[in-house]
Amino acid sequence: MTGEQEKAREDIANRLARIAGHAASLKRLWDEGRESREMLTQVAAVRAALDAVGRAILEQEIDHQLSRALVYGVSDEASRALKEALDRLL
Amino acid sequence: MTGEQEKAREDIANRLARIAGHAASLKRLWDEGRESREMLTQVAAVRAALDAVGRAILEQEIDHQLSRALVYGVSDEASRALKEALDRLL
Amino acid sequence: MTGEQEKAREDIANRLARIAGHAASLKRLWDEGRESREMLTQVAAVRAALDAVGRAILEQEIDHQLSRALVYGVSDEASRALKEALDRLL
Amino acid sequence: MTGEQEKAREDIANRLARIAGHAASLKRLWDEGRESREMLTQVAAVRAALDAVGRAILEQEIDHQLSRALVYGVSDEASRALKEALDRLL
Repeated sequence: MTGEQEKAREDIANRLARIAGHAASLKRLWDEGRESREMLTQVAAVRAALDAVGRAILEQEIDHQLSRALVYGVSDEASRALKEALDRLL
Repeated sequence: MTGEQEKAREDIANRLARIAGHAASLKRLWDEGRESREMLTQVAAVRAALDAVGRAILEQEIDHQLSRALVYGVSDEASRALKEALDRLL
Repeated sequence: MTGEQEKAREDIANRLARIAGHAASLKRLWDEGRESREMLTQVAAVRAALDAVGRAILEQEIDHQLSRALVYGVSDEASRALKEALDRLL
Repeated sequence: MTGEQEKAREDIANRLARIAGHAASLKRLWDEGRESREMLTQVAAVRAALDAVGRAILEQEIDHQLSRALVYGVSDEASRALKEALDRLL
């Protein structure tokens, strides 16, 4: 793995750790009886963070599949993998 | 709180607990080096669960605001609160 | 219909007319061979306008159902209708 | 353009033509005074069709950029273009 790829992996790990903490706090806020509007704001914030990390994982996959296509000199497998990755997220 | 409202609160608490567990597992899967396609499937699953709980909270708010409007005999405040709740989710 | 409701109806009619025009232009841009990135920007813009008009229709429905609940003095039917409207949009 | 690419272009053109027709019908339905729930169903249907055509355009771009990367033997430009395309849609 290159330094850049390692940094990208770490960035995603950090985002996922923050999302886990944020998701755990949703349960606490609910148990404390917070207002619906506050709950909805927090739910939307966690969802936005999930969207962002999903995009980051997909971007990493784009680079991975482009490298594979160049190594093997063919694009069929990379094309199929990227479309499948996209399908899972959208 | 009526029995039905209490059941709705509990249902939302249970969903939030499951979402927290699922979000924590995302971090673990990433640290284990799972494939991007599996990660994206799991990210999409947590997001769908968040969407569903957000909708459940909003439905609870609809009932709460309708009751308030009937008690006070006016709808302005309930209208404002529901539109604000919707804005936060969408 | 009150003046305010009539204005809300007109606002939605105007938004829908603009969306129809924008959607028709997507086909023209494609036939002219515009770049994918420009197409995707325009597709996202039409989608955002659709989301906004859907929200406006839902807000109108909120006011309609709150008025009905106050007229009849019960909220069951209004609650059911609003949740169904929400389901269709989300 | 290969036969397959030409077919993909035509498929997208057909989808965009249907979306334009569907979007125009939204305005007509509204002017006829259709119920909110019917309007919301139709708005959601047009939005789903837009999402699908956006995905189809992005898939075409994936193939285009993979081909370019293989022709030039480098992936930087293709990586940048695909991430930008993704950003516009998401």
